[in-house]
Amino acid sequence: MALLHLFLRALENMKHSFRNDYSEGCHPKILEALFANNDSQQNGYGEDEFCRKAETLILEKCKSSNSKVHFVSGGTFANLLVISAVLKPYESVISADSGHINSNETGAVEHAGHKIHSVFSENGKLYPEQISEVLKIHTNFPHQVKPKLVYISNATELGTVYTKKELKNLYEFCKKNRLFLFMDGARLGQAIASENGDLSLEDCAKFTDVFYIGGTKNGALFGEAIVVNNPEILEDIRFHIKQKGGLLAKGRVLGIQFLTLFQDDLYFNLAKHANLQMKKIKNKFEESGFRFLTETYSNQLFPILNQKQIQTLQSEFEFYEWKKIDEHFSAIRLITSWKTNDETVEKFIRMVSGL
Amino acid sequence: MALLHLFLRALENMKHSFRNDYSEGCHPKILEALFANNDSQQNGYGEDEFCRKAETLILEKCKSSNSKVHFVSGGTFANLLVISAVLKPYESVISADSGHINSNETGAVEHAGHKIHSVFSENGKLYPEQISEVLKIHTNFPHQVKPKLVYISNATELGTVYTKKELKNLYEFCKKNRLFLFMDGARLGQAIASENGDLSLEDCAKFTDVFYIGGTKNGALFGEAIVVNNPEILEDIRFHIKQKGGLLAKGRVLGIQFLTLFQDDLYFNLAKHANLQMKKIKNKFEESGFRFLTETYSNQLFPILNQKQIQTLQSEFEFYEWKKIDEHFSAIRLITSWKTNDETVEKFIRMVSGL
Amino acid sequence: MALLHLFLRALENMKHSFRNDYSEGCHPKILEALFANNDSQQNGYGEDEFCRKAETLILEKCKSSNSKVHFVSGGTFANLLVISAVLKPYESVISADSGHINSNETGAVEHAGHKIHSVFSENGKLYPEQISEVLKIHTNFPHQVKPKLVYISNATELGTVYTKKELKNLYEFCKKNRLFLFMDGARLGQAIASENGDLSLEDCAKFTDVFYIGGTKNGALFGEAIVVNNPEILEDIRFHIKQKGGLLAKGRVLGIQFLTLFQDDLYFNLAKHANLQMKKIKNKFEESGFRFLTETYSNQLFPILNQKQIQTLQSEFEFYEWKKIDEHFSAIRLITSWKTNDETVEKFIRMVSGL
Amino acid sequence: MALLHLFLRALENMKHSFRNDYSEGCHPKILEALFANNDSQQNGYGEDEFCRKAETLILEKCKSSNSKVHFVSGGTFANLLVISAVLKPYESVISADSGHINSNETGAVEHAGHKIHSVFSENGKLYPEQISEVLKIHTNFPHQVKPKLVYISNATELGTVYTKKELKNLYEFCKKNRLFLFMDGARLGQAIASENGDLSLEDCAKFTDVFYIGGTKNGALFGEAIVVNNPEILEDIRFHIKQKGGLLAKGRVLGIQFLTLFQDDLYFNLAKHANLQMKKIKNKFEESGFRFLTETYSNQLFPILNQKQIQTLQSEFEFYEWKKIDEHFSAIRLITSWKTNDETVEKFIRMVSGL
Repeated sequence: MALLHLFLRALENMKHSFRNDYSEGCHPKILEALFANNDSQQNGYGEDEFCRKAETLILEKCKSSNSKVHFVSGGTFANLLVISAVLKPYESVISADSGHINSNETGAVEHAGHKIHSVFSENGKLYPEQISEVLKIHTNFPHQVKPKLVYISNATELGTVYTKKELKNLYEFCKKNRLFLFMDGARLGQAIASENGDLSLEDCAKFTDVFYIGGTKNGALFGEAIVVNNPEILEDIRFHIKQKGGLLAKGRVLGIQFLTLFQDDLYFNLAKHANLQMKKIKNKFEESGFRFLTETYSNQLFPILNQKQIQTLQSEFEFYEWKKIDEHFSAIRLITSWKTNDETVEKFIRMVSGL
Repeated sequence: MALLHLFLRALENMKHSFRNDYSEGCHPKILEALFANNDSQQNGYGEDEFCRKAETLILEKCKSSNSKVHFVSGGTFANLLVISAVLKPYESVISADSGHINSNETGAVEHAGHKIHSVFSENGKLYPEQISEVLKIHTNFPHQVKPKLVYISNATELGTVYTKKELKNLYEFCKKNRLFLFMDGARLGQAIASENGDLSLEDCAKFTDVFYIGGTKNGALFGEAIVVNNPEILEDIRFHIKQKGGLLAKGRVLGIQFLTLFQDDLYFNLAKHANLQMKKIKNKFEESGFRFLTETYSNQLFPILNQKQIQTLQSEFEFYEWKKIDEHFSAIRLITSWKTNDETVEKFIRMVSGL
Repeated sequence: MALLHLFLRALENMKHSFRNDYSEGCHPKILEALFANNDSQQNGYGEDEFCRKAETLILEKCKSSNSKVHFVSGGTFANLLVISAVLKPYESVISADSGHINSNETGAVEHAGHKIHSVFSENGKLYPEQISEVLKIHTNFPHQVKPKLVYISNATELGTVYTKKELKNLYEFCKKNRLFLFMDGARLGQAIASENGDLSLEDCAKFTDVFYIGGTKNGALFGEAIVVNNPEILEDIRFHIKQKGGLLAKGRVLGIQFLTLFQDDLYFNLAKHANLQMKKIKNKFEESGFRFLTETYSNQLFPILNQKQIQTLQSEFEFYEWKKIDEHFSAIRLITSWKTNDETVEKFIRMVSGL
Repeated sequence: MALLHLFLRALENMKHSFRNDYSEGCHPKILEALFANNDSQQNGYGEDEFCRKAETLILEKCKSSNSKVHFVSGGTFANLLVISAVLKPYESVISADSGHINSNETGAVEHAGHKIHSVFSENGKLYPEQISEVLKIHTNFPHQVKPKLVYISNATELGTVYTKKELKNLYEFCKKNRLFLFMDGARLGQAIASENGDLSLEDCAKFTDVFYIGGTKNGALFGEAIVVNNPEILEDIRFHIKQKGGLLAKGRVLGIQFLTLFQDDLYFNLAKHANLQMKKIKNKFEESGFRFLTETYSNQLFPILNQKQIQTLQSEFEFYEWKKIDEHFSAIRLITSWKTNDETVEKFIRMVSGL
């Protein structure tokens, strides 16, 4: 029985997973760098030379020398940290309903004390008009919370990306309305590397108060680099990081990873690869006449299939059924990563052709 | 200048306010009882004889001798107390979008650490199907919060009331789904006294895990009586009350008030009065062909008027413009209280006739 | 059985209690004022005319027209409100170990997120040197909390009071060290009325950033008046009050009480009475050669008695055994109030004579 | 200028640091294992095969097959997680004053809502009598917090270790008093490997409700393995980990590290090495007649030196001045690690000889 179980598990494991972009380890260059720098003694808690160099390098790429960079271990931590450190207890955050903070972080933001105004968004993005609606119905102070921060993800949880103009508009709207703009960049690499995008890292630094660059979903073992652009906020962020249990003693591990990722544009090359692999898959679905839940140009795809088609694909691949469309059809979610190889993609494409 | 200001204020004060049911002091019998019992020495912190007697009397009316009663000073406090004391940190509460906890308590529930699932409700009430929808999309544990408590208000913030059957259905649905049901009864008197209702205090004790009886909006100086029916929850509520700063040293003030309100059914008589005054107003609006935002049978009314009509009424009365319907029309909110007298109602009705 | 229980309870109730200063109701003038002002319609949530007038009157007495006054229902609430609204999440508060926030508020301050540095104090008071010690060992940032607020009670929980010079020194030390000074005045009346004191309400406004004037323990039904002197803090306090469930709908109840207490110096006269009754008791104990736990000049007394003496007094009076001194002796705590009458004091004194 | 700065920094870096046991990277076997297992796709969030295997291996060593293991990234996170997930809001934790949670975690436990009872301890350890004292003065419920959890560190922050008997006594005392016992094992390896100790991993599982095995300070890149022995607590710990932002997407990184550390007893061998290097240093100080702040048998040492001696050592080595003893003398803190080599130790010893 146990043996059979193991055998079935083994078989299952042989299926390639398109479930997410953190199924594999990290890019080998990162392990090499960890090896190469393993022996030196360093200051603890992010005050090592690697963190300093990684900060400098990232800010060069951002063309934003007055910004500050802080490294933390994961996206949920980055989100709850930034939001709770920026807001006063009675201030709130506006997010698309599909926003990660709203739907997949076990209520971390509310646990940290803040209301999320969840705004319906077809494509996962936020626009000034939607925010405006929230502001209009929250003016009965002190009986209502004060909306003070706008949270966006880029790429979004639905695989869409912001254009430079969209981000600029949003930022200017926020400034006019005394709101802070925070961009969750768990998949920022894929957003910037999007064939359809025109956003640069520089724009991110220019048109947000704070954002982060996701390592976990783009080739790191773990880690996100928070870039604080607005000097009026988060000056004391290290107190918050420590108090919430996120200040790694060997901060070097984060510094070395980001230093590696930002040398020779490895970070963006990995994201491009992930996007390209997905583009091939998307092309095949389009060719074959399939519809999509949203129009995506990154490493996520949400094709709409019937149950039989889904089962066929599931016989060889793993992925999530994302949303029931009707009795017969569902959107599935496919994600490629920096490591998805050509062979797997070709095998998948052949299978799509046969559906 | 200061004098002019005072004069204008004085004029303004002469307008009768239909803004809410807590504009006046308290029913005189309460002040008389405070006087009569002022001299005796009593134990502090709710362990006085008045609190004990009031508990006994309330539980008699509830026909629920195993329930427990705890008195606190206000509705927002009662809500945040009960919700945070019942839930584990990662558990959440489901509420109508118009629910007081969702819209008018400065994020108190989130500040206490819990996500509110806000469910759209036309009439302010919740039904099993709506809760079911929330449960269906929250199964990805531990990445999502666990919905565990259903919050309803009765009467609702839109003046509607639950029937006995509706409450029973909701409670049974909750039990089947291992949810707790909590009823905010800030206007419970008015709900039970509703001409259109068939709910008794006994039903409230039978078909909720915990509910409270609002004093503030029905003739008390302040105070709500929390009735805990489910012995598995809130055993340690006094620790929570104290820790949140709500354990009044002279708990007798709450005990005496509720003892007075529940003697000779004063509580329900006051609510009936408020409802009756509103019924007269409602009849007049109906007669005159006005529409309403929701169909109410309690002490709240939401007639839809055009701007000119609103201004006419505002020249003599105070009330809130509640919701813009379109370019020309808005729903206003009118509230009567235990103290609204016939003369005022007649004056208002005459004015409505003339619109 | 039940009858016997009732009978014994009745007997017990006939003993006069020196347990605390909140055993009785309120001063009759307060009830009269509530009656007199019961009918007028008022704005809710502390924006009524009584709160405004009470604020003006209190600030006149404080000679501090730029201060602001906010009324809340109790001392624990006032403490947790002020401390959590003043401090950032990683900032901490320094208190005497006997401080109410440290020992008798169910961890309310920690529950609100802040560390209390508990400092041993023989007499319940804090001095600059003690605070200095805490500052010295908290410099390893961000690994340690940042002490930012000094909490004192006056009168202290041990019945002692601050002199003007002591308060001034403390305040100046705080300013030099960028600390805020907060005075818990649950028994401020008794401190100011102390025969041994030289502190005025004006001094409290001058030498603290924020303090409160306790009503509950000096003749009110309930209520504390928070006076904010430092304009850089607590601007947004009403958001905090509402979010923590402390904004009474009928704020008038607090306004009317404080208006009454501060007319014709009723507040200080009540405190003087309480102190005077205690002084008579103290004189008798001194005469009879008893020692005290601390040297007090307010409405609290901590005489040291042997077990037999304690039992004798307990046969006719109620009070707390406060602290075991050794095998044979304990300090008891006696408290008089604005209502303690001559007859009771004389009866007690006779009993002390006989010990 | 910048160059000079770099040069000075470089010089400074050439000094060997005895500041802590997390100055270097990780044991090379860990990096090798990360390499070897880098390519396979794994489930996220700790549900990978490495975490499962590491759990099994650890529980074998604990001889406690019903315990559960959860991996998190650091010690402060582990502490605040366990404490806040075990306690109800009004329950508190007892710790030695030198306990890490009390002195070096930026008030993380209080930020999570719980009071720490700080108990003076000469040697950093806790004994039943000390806990008993706290229990005795916390019985005034609900006005006081309820002590419910005892926190100890082993090795302590002062380098001392618990014997088997001490731990057993403590555990039995806790059980008798309905307290939970939690052991912070940030340096558990060094405690178990102590020449003077007789405690096994099995004892830790037997005589605590929950403890953790520190990786960060004993050869890992980062990571602590929380072992839950009492099945009545922490069943839902994964919700808490996620909600606090500590559930790593690539949980494999933690699993692989602990799998490596617990194969062939690498974990204990590394700790033995650290202890041994310190023993040589200790012997030399003893030989030379120095006193110590505490009697330690692990990888920490607190010799008492005069200022001149300290300066001499500082010319070649880095370490903390821990505590001023008097005008002339201070205790310094020296820490060796799994990586401290013989050459460095010999150089240091020679220098001590010359003092």
